[in-house]
Amino acid sequence: MSTPPVPASNDPSAQWVDEIFDGVRYGLAGRVIAEQHSPFQRVTIIESERYGKGLLLDGCWMTAERQERHYHEALVHPALCGAAQVERVLVIGGGDGGTARECLRHAGVQHLDMVEIDGLVVEWSQQLLPGIGGSAWSDPRFQLTVGDGIAWVREAEAASYDVVIVDGSDPAGPAEGLFNRAFFEHCRRILRPGGVFATQSESPEAFREVHIATVRLLREVFGHADPLYGWVPMYPSGWWSWTFAAVDGPRYRDAQPERAAGVAAGCEIWSPRWQSGAFEAVPAFVERALADGG
Amino acid sequence: MSTPPVPASNDPSAQWVDEIFDGVRYGLAGRVIAEQHSPFQRVTIIESERYGKGLLLDGCWMTAERQERHYHEALVHPALCGAAQVERVLVIGGGDGGTARECLRHAGVQHLDMVEIDGLVVEWSQQLLPGIGGSAWSDPRFQLTVGDGIAWVREAEAASYDVVIVDGSDPAGPAEGLFNRAFFEHCRRILRPGGVFATQSESPEAFREVHIATVRLLREVFGHADPLYGWVPMYPSGWWSWTFAAVDGPRYRDAQPERAAGVAAGCEIWSPRWQSGAFEAVPAFVERALADGG
Repeated sequence: MSTPPVPASNDPSAQWVDEIFDGVRYGLAGRVIAEQHSPFQRVTIIESERYGKGLLLDGCWMTAERQERHYHEALVHPALCGAAQVERVLVIGGGDGGTARECLRHAGVQHLDMVEIDGLVVEWSQQLLPGIGGSAWSDPRFQLTVGDGIAWVREAEAASYDVVIVDGSDPAGPAEGLFNRAFFEHCRRILRPGGVFATQSESPEAFREVHIATVRLLREVFGHADPLYGWVPMYPSGWWSWTFAAVDGPRYRDAQPERAAGVAAGCEIWSPRWQSGAFEAVPAFVERALADGG
Repeated sequence: MSTPPVPASNDPSAQWVDEIFDGVRYGLAGRVIAEQHSPFQRVTIIESERYGKGLLLDGCWMTAERQERHYHEALVHPALCGAAQVERVLVIGGGDGGTARECLRHAGVQHLDMVEIDGLVVEWSQQLLPGIGGSAWSDPRFQLTVGDGIAWVREAEAASYDVVIVDGSDPAGPAEGLFNRAFFEHCRRILRPGGVFATQSESPEAFREVHIATVRLLREVFGHADPLYGWVPMYPSGWWSWTFAAVDGPRYRDAQPERAAGVAAGCEIWSPRWQSGAFEAVPAFVERALADGG
């Protein structure tokens, strides 16, 4: 029952690469193929046996080639299928390119701004994880800015985006400012009428308080906000959430059939049916907490 | 990024206790407090920092004090809230007592047979994990048989149970015979009219083929069967399923309000709303596989 010796698997050069969080570790057998400190964080690329190449930031799992669709499909399609229009999309973070890739599968998107703070994440994702961003990197609708997403939303014109998606890491380090009222109010301000806001909103199990506080705050700021529950096996507890918000009603809950039909065949997890279930599958303790908190 | 040294945490005597599956490991910081080979398997009890005491069988995580409700609530309440009656309940496996405990929260249950093959699992659960079985162990409606659940269902009278629940481990070792047509046909035979069958049905991610094959087979045998999706962080991938089956229609999908009201306040995860979402949240790849497979 104790820690197994290296090697981690049949491959004698493989070792375990772990994220440790709160007395739990999740590890993949593999090896580090690149690691460097950017000005913002430690960036690590591994080659794993089970999920292909993967990315960690400050030792926390972010994504992997054969596990990324759980996250990116869940974050993108409820927003892109629910907004009144999808001509102009803003992605804050998302340096691996997977969120942009899923957005650009929607033919109605005419322009996508992606603002990622860490150029090294973009560079290594393009070089070492090219399948995650896929054709997004060369899509003429795609505009990358390496810079501060918080400043970007503060300075953007009112009513300038149909969809705003926050694809950041945990609310510590460079992503800390992506989980507060001032930031969310700017996101609301820059949405066009009928627009939808989306953010990853942590695990209801491993980050229970942050999760509930985020949903509450988004309800206060936008008027309508609902969490959707799914799975990212490599994240703490594996149980994850994304929260969607809108001003004019919970329009993110119902996928417009024509838009859904345009992307569903290419999805592994997401479907209109999956989405409707994932919005309903609110665990009892969250439902009680949200009711108590008003 | 490499394996951290022991100690695993601030407690210098804690080590990592891991389950390794297919190039992935999930470990808890803690220590082994009891370990013994029963005639059927290696039984291990640990004390973990994050989730309290936990149980492993042959090195695979089974349950832990502060994580068991994800599993037991999901397995029990759709069956017990959906069956026409719940007077007589059969649990195959479930040696930790959590499934029996949740069943016996339903006031309509008059008799519960639990048939667990491994007496050591029962004994250590009673002694070392007493909170999981709770008051079930001393409930006058509860009847424990240490023996072979497969033989039990083969020999049971036709139409003798309202609900049959299979709470077994993975389909290898002692639980292998709990995932085949002959066993399921006996389960169907011993159900009363309006009865419901329930089984854990593995992870759609880590055990994709077994999961899909189990749902298909249950549909063939019972006529109606549907998977429900939830989370058990310590199981491979964290993403788990339970499948419910009935002869006279998918009656497990709609929780009878009076029965639901009797148990909902004591649940952490389960609610009628959560259940309806968890049945709808079928991932696209499973929906396609089930449609292809007839």
